[in-house]
Amino acid sequence: MKFLLFAGSLRIQSLNKKLINSIHMHLKNQIIEHELIDLVDFTAPVYNGDIETTAGIPESIKKLTHYIQQTDALIIATPEYNGGISSPLKNTVDWLSRCKPMPLAGKHLLLASASPGQFGGVRGAWHTRVPFEILGVHVFPDMFSLPLADTQFDTTNKLIDEKIDERLKKLVTRFVEYVKKKI
Amino acid sequence: MKFLLFAGSLRIQSLNKKLINSIHMHLKNQIIEHELIDLVDFTAPVYNGDIETTAGIPESIKKLTHYIQQTDALIIATPEYNGGISSPLKNTVDWLSRCKPMPLAGKHLLLASASPGQFGGVRGAWHTRVPFEILGVHVFPDMFSLPLADTQFDTTNKLIDEKIDERLKKLVTRFVEYVKKKI
Amino acid sequence: MKFLLFAGSLRIQSLNKKLINSIHMHLKNQIIEHELIDLVDFTAPVYNGDIETTAGIPESIKKLTHYIQQTDALIIATPEYNGGISSPLKNTVDWLSRCKPMPLAGKHLLLASASPGQFGGVRGAWHTRVPFEILGVHVFPDMFSLPLADTQFDTTNKLIDEKIDERLKKLVTRFVEYVKKKI
Amino acid sequence: MKFLLFAGSLRIQSLNKKLINSIHMHLKNQIIEHELIDLVDFTAPVYNGDIETTAGIPESIKKLTHYIQQTDALIIATPEYNGGISSPLKNTVDWLSRCKPMPLAGKHLLLASASPGQFGGVRGAWHTRVPFEILGVHVFPDMFSLPLADTQFDTTNKLIDEKIDERLKKLVTRFVEYVKKKI
Repeated sequence: MKFLLFAGSLRIQSLNKKLINSIHMHLKNQIIEHELIDLVDFTAPVYNGDIETTAGIPESIKKLTHYIQQTDALIIATPEYNGGISSPLKNTVDWLSRCKPMPLAGKHLLLASASPGQFGGVRGAWHTRVPFEILGVHVFPDMFSLPLADTQFDTTNKLIDEKIDERLKKLVTRFVEYVKKKI
Repeated sequence: MKFLLFAGSLRIQSLNKKLINSIHMHLKNQIIEHELIDLVDFTAPVYNGDIETTAGIPESIKKLTHYIQQTDALIIATPEYNGGISSPLKNTVDWLSRCKPMPLAGKHLLLASASPGQFGGVRGAWHTRVPFEILGVHVFPDMFSLPLADTQFDTTNKLIDEKIDERLKKLVTRFVEYVKKKI
Repeated sequence: MKFLLFAGSLRIQSLNKKLINSIHMHLKNQIIEHELIDLVDFTAPVYNGDIETTAGIPESIKKLTHYIQQTDALIIATPEYNGGISSPLKNTVDWLSRCKPMPLAGKHLLLASASPGQFGGVRGAWHTRVPFEILGVHVFPDMFSLPLADTQFDTTNKLIDEKIDERLKKLVTRFVEYVKKKI
Repeated sequence: MKFLLFAGSLRIQSLNKKLINSIHMHLKNQIIEHELIDLVDFTAPVYNGDIETTAGIPESIKKLTHYIQQTDALIIATPEYNGGISSPLKNTVDWLSRCKPMPLAGKHLLLASASPGQFGGVRGAWHTRVPFEILGVHVFPDMFSLPLADTQFDTTNKLIDEKIDERLKKLVTRFVEYVKKKI
C-alpha cells in the first residue's frame, strides 16, 4: 500500500504545502509507504487540444502519471481559488484525464484545504471533489479544512494548535484504515 | 452598451469557438456593439503566486482586463472538462481575480456550452457559474447547452438545425434586453 | 417596487428568522414596500405527483404564489441542512415550480444564511441558488452568511455586532439599488 | 452483506421506481441479500425543529433508520427536481441526520436517476451526492442516468434497450464487488 501526497498550489510558501507537510508527518509515524511531491515539478502549459495533437502529453504529466500508477491513494491539500478548484490542480487533472490508461481511475483520495479566510476553503473543496469523482476516484467523504491558516503554523511549519493537529491525525488514520481494506 | 465574446477553450477547431461564432452572428444582426476575441491571444502561465510576486500580472491578462473594463457584458461559450470548468477559463478567471480593480465585478454574463456528449456540457456550465458569481458577476439564470455538438455545425460553422439556432437567438436577445435595462 | 421576505426554516426560534428580521429592519428604514411572511403559514405535504394529480396544488402554495406574483424581489434567509438547501425551502420551491404561471420566473433574489457553525451556512447557500436559477430567478451574486449565529443576536433579536449589521445593511442596500434599475 | 433499495420519488408510476425495479432484478440474479422499499411508506412531515422537539423523530423515520442499520449499502434511483435533489429524498435525509446513532454514516451508496428530459437527471444526481457525503456516506463515483426515461420501459416496467440494461447491470455488479471488499 502506497500513498502519494501533494499540494494543489505552486508557490513555495503555500499554506497548503504546510498543511500537506503536517499530513506527511502523520503518515511517517504510521510507517506507511508514501511519497510527497511538489506540483511545481510537474507543471504543464494550460490545456490546449492543439498542443496535445502536435506535441503530445507533456513529459511532466507522463512522469506524474507514472507516480500515480504506483500508488493506491492520494492525499491532496489544495486551496480554494474563487470559490472553486485551484487552476494548477484543475489543469493537472485535465491533462491526466487525457492519458491512457487514465491513472486516477479507482484510486482513493483524501482532500484537505487551508485558507487565510474564515471558511478554510470548504466551498472550493466541494467543487474539487467533482472532477475526481467523474474520473472514477473514490473521494473520502470526510475532508479537512483549516480556516485562518496564515496564523496556524509555527516557524517550523507545524500546526500550532495540538487539538487541530490531533483532529487531522485522526482523519488521516481513518482514511488509511479505509484504504487498507483489501485494496 | 458593449459586449465581449469569447470561447473557454483554446484549440482552433473548438466546438465552443463555433458556438460563440453563432452567437456573434446574432449580435451582429441586432446592431449591438461587441467584440469577439480568442483566449489563445491572452494565455498566461498556470497561476502561481510566486510568478505574480516576481513578474507581476502577465501582460496578456492586463490586456484582457482592459477589454473587459470597456464592456458591460460578456458571453462565453465554454466546454466542460471533467464535469467542471475548463482549465483555460479557470486559469484566466484566477489571474483576473488578482487585478485591481478587478474588472469582472458587476458585469453581466451569459454562459453557453457545446459538447460532443449527450449532456452538452450542462454539468460543467453549473460549476462555471460559481467563480464568476463569487467575483460579483450577474450570471444570467438561463444558459444554452448544445449536445452532440460535433454533428451540429455545417462546413461554414453555422448551426445546421434552424430550431436550435432560433432558440439560441431568443436567449441572446433576452440577455441583451436584460442588460440594456439602465446599465 | 415590492419585496417579499421569509426564512427557509419553520421553527419559531430559528436563527434565520432572526436574521430575516434584521433584514426587515433595514428595509423599513429605506421606506421600501415589503412584506415579511413565515413559511410555517404556507406548509404543504412533501411533494408527491399523486397528491398533485388527485388534490391539485395545495391552497397554501397557491396563496404563496399570489404573494410572489405581487413582488419584484425576494429576500430569503435560510439554513444549511446537511450541506445543502433546507428541506422546507426545497419542498416549497418544488411545489411552486408546478404552478402555472410559475411565479418565480424573472424575479430577483437575495440569499442570506445563519448557522451556529463556523461556516455560517455558506455551503448550503451555494446549493440553494441552483433551483432558483434553474427557474429563471436572478440570484444576486453576493450573499450574506452569519457564522456562530447562536451568539450573534441579543434578547430583542437584534444583531449584537454593529459592524456585522452595517455589512448586512450595505448588502441589502446594494441589492435594492440593483433591483430598482432592473425592473 | 445486505443492500437496501428505494426510489427518491413518491408517486406510484414514478420512472425512478421503474428504474430501481430494474436494478432490483440484477441484484436478484446475483443472489445478494437485499430489500426493496417504497419511501411512500416512510413519509414524514416537512422537517421542522419544533415538531422534533414536541413530538420527537417520526415513527416512519425510526423504522427507516432500523432498515438502514441492517444494511451495508444503499442503491437509490432518484429524480432531479429543479436541478437538484428531490424534496422527498432531501426531507428523508434531513430527518435521518437527526437520529442517534445516525444510520447513514459509513454506508456505501450507488445513485441512479431517470428523467423524461435529455439530461437524465444528471445535474440533480451531483447535488444529491452532497448531503450523503456530508453525513459520511461513501457515494460510488460512477452513477447511472437514464434520459428520455418515459420511453425506455415496456409495459412490464423492464428496460427496452438491452444495451442500456447491460450497462446498468455492469455498474451494479462493479458496485457490489466494491462493497464486498470494503465492508
